[in-house]
Amino acid sequence: MSDAAKKIMQRINALAKISDEQRQLTRTFASPAMRRANDTVASWMRDAGMTTRADAIGNLIGRYEGTSPNAKTLILGSHLDTVRNAGKFDGPLGVILALACVEELQRTKCRLPFAIEAVGFCDEEGVRYQSTYLGSRVLAGCFEATDLLRKDASGVTMADAIKAFGGAPQKIPSAKLNPKKVLAYVEVHIEQGPVLEEKNLAVGVVTTIAGQSRIKLTFTGKAGHAGTTPMSLRQDALCAAAEFILAVERYGKEMAGLVATVGQIQNTPNASNVIPGEVSISLDVRHQRDAVRRAAVKQFQAVRNDIEKERRVKIASQVIQETDSVPCSLAISNLLQSSALKKQRSAPQLSSGAGHDAAVMAQITPVGMLFVRCKGGVSHHPDESVQTSDVQVALEVMNDFIDSLAKHHG
Amino acid sequence: MSDAAKKIMQRINALAKISDEQRQLTRTFASPAMRRANDTVASWMRDAGMTTRADAIGNLIGRYEGTSPNAKTLILGSHLDTVRNAGKFDGPLGVILALACVEELQRTKCRLPFAIEAVGFCDEEGVRYQSTYLGSRVLAGCFEATDLLRKDASGVTMADAIKAFGGAPQKIPSAKLNPKKVLAYVEVHIEQGPVLEEKNLAVGVVTTIAGQSRIKLTFTGKAGHAGTTPMSLRQDALCAAAEFILAVERYGKEMAGLVATVGQIQNTPNASNVIPGEVSISLDVRHQRDAVRRAAVKQFQAVRNDIEKERRVKIASQVIQETDSVPCSLAISNLLQSSALKKQRSAPQLSSGAGHDAAVMAQITPVGMLFVRCKGGVSHHPDESVQTSDVQVALEVMNDFIDSLAKHHG
Repeated sequence: MSDAAKKIMQRINALAKISDEQRQLTRTFASPAMRRANDTVASWMRDAGMTTRADAIGNLIGRYEGTSPNAKTLILGSHLDTVRNAGKFDGPLGVILALACVEELQRTKCRLPFAIEAVGFCDEEGVRYQSTYLGSRVLAGCFEATDLLRKDASGVTMADAIKAFGGAPQKIPSAKLNPKKVLAYVEVHIEQGPVLEEKNLAVGVVTTIAGQSRIKLTFTGKAGHAGTTPMSLRQDALCAAAEFILAVERYGKEMAGLVATVGQIQNTPNASNVIPGEVSISLDVRHQRDAVRRAAVKQFQAVRNDIEKERRVKIASQVIQETDSVPCSLAISNLLQSSALKKQRSAPQLSSGAGHDAAVMAQITPVGMLFVRCKGGVSHHPDESVQTSDVQVALEVMNDFIDSLAKHHG
Repeated sequence: MSDAAKKIMQRINALAKISDEQRQLTRTFASPAMRRANDTVASWMRDAGMTTRADAIGNLIGRYEGTSPNAKTLILGSHLDTVRNAGKFDGPLGVILALACVEELQRTKCRLPFAIEAVGFCDEEGVRYQSTYLGSRVLAGCFEATDLLRKDASGVTMADAIKAFGGAPQKIPSAKLNPKKVLAYVEVHIEQGPVLEEKNLAVGVVTTIAGQSRIKLTFTGKAGHAGTTPMSLRQDALCAAAEFILAVERYGKEMAGLVATVGQIQNTPNASNVIPGEVSISLDVRHQRDAVRRAAVKQFQAVRNDIEKERRVKIASQVIQETDSVPCSLAISNLLQSSALKKQRSAPQLSSGAGHDAAVMAQITPVGMLFVRCKGGVSHHPDESVQTSDVQVALEVMNDFIDSLAKHHG
């Protein structure tokens, strides 16, 4: 194992100890733990010969100059915030690996025809303000100013949190990157799924970040005594929801690449001796092709209508979010794939079902993503696990990619 | 409308104001509201020429002597406790109607060849200690002494609650009624179901209190990212539970008289973007014939085994409670039916899907029950509603029944 890969793991382990909560890893936007994490990573960046700065919202940016001060910038990175009770790789892996790429340039005293900026985004998970991608949205210039008024669970507005963190809410608009100065954004991230593990491969290249529809459905039947209401007279909201849930699963299995999930369910009154009167569920539908996703949503609405008619249960549905798919840059992806093929027998093209900062950065620059195998596909959980040998492959692929890009650019 | 029926309604309304909670009716075992309710009903009992006493656990008993002090006792009554945020008829109707029957005897200066005791049971719903039928179990001699150690939500043991209420835990065993001195137990109660309303009749006669099986099932699948885990690799606990829920409903509809309900569902982690990893549900199965209920439970276990195999989801099941059906006395039911037929065009025989104090009292004496129509079959809810005209029919039926029983007995 290379020392570089081991060092990446040591740093990821060190970051995992920087938490807002005792005994579990939780690092939210503009929190004290985020402050310490930024300070720690910034010091590593400076050791790697980078100049560091924090932008108006608190993104940490380390810069390694190219051969010319007017060169474009290749941005590498990921996010430093986490979910509650998180694993240690989701986010930090991409930041620390970017740093390792720069260390390799420093070690070989290499300057490129472009600058490299390693970014640690301040918020991707959106735990504190239920608003994801705060960091990348500032760099991409699509930050919503009204979000500054959002309050966290303690009533602190986002604007005040940013100020307390040392940022400057009023300077957020001017923190947008100049697209003309950016060459590309490339992010390394754990797969959060089981495909690479199934194929027994360390890394894969992301071609698309899937679009997503999030819908809330509420089934309103009629509560009643479980012992005294004949089956034929019931309007059981949970049975209606169960029928819908199975229809979603059936259709999801039929359509290649579609994932459709009912992850949340709330039942009222939820007592063993009362027929369920009202049930709310969440529906999450994703596919790399937007047309397929939209057709699925349409199909689910038809199922909803059928159940409503057959069961005398009212079903309200509300679209909570609709995001189109984001394609990765073909040029970047091809380079990543060529580099990956030098390190492993095949380089599978993957679609990312999860959202990433890359999806936001795509608004201003070509993006690429390299996925790294994670154990059991588990993420957002302390059991998140990545092998050091896979980190080494990812590092070698990225070093080779940067080399190729320089040749390509030069 | 007779004044007697109106008076019953007024008293039920007065009791509905005696609550442990503001703005909703909640009257739990041995609570301050229970104290005031008992005192109020006791004063009405004394006005009706009854002597009153409270037994060791806090049941309120009013006695109207028969022609001889050694006569057997006909016990009429129901419970004075309620569920949380209750309706006003479930329980109190039977107590206040019993009192009205005695008032009719007092008005006509009539003494019977048996005494009448009107009982207001102190606990049938089991809200405070999650242990139902505390009151009737004491009179029937099947109270479990270990229940005295149970603690309520504030940590107060049942023994201390009884003492604070003025009862005597150590005297509970001797509070058992002598079966030889009891003629029968007859309870008037709202139907809690829609059958009488469907038939447009005021009252019906209960032939059986259905047996009940309560089972808890836990489906353990595998949580995973909703965006990144292909449908084919999922072990979705909620989909497995949904399949079970629909199978329960299907079978319940096929078997005449069977009611099978999944009323409770708990999903973990219950997040819109996470595949459900573990789901627990309650299953409640009731039928007046125990063999049919047992066959249903067997069938549900077979369904469970099939789902477990097909879906690679582990399903644990645990029987929480199993109660056999309790037949009402044929002699008492026939008398009730004859009396009912004098007041309405037909007197349907009903099976009670809900449990009642009568099911416990059946251990020591013949029991009978008269059901009164309630609006929409709704119970355990502030919307519980009974028409005064139906109360009048119930009162007339009970007066006639008592009269018939006296003739029968004499």
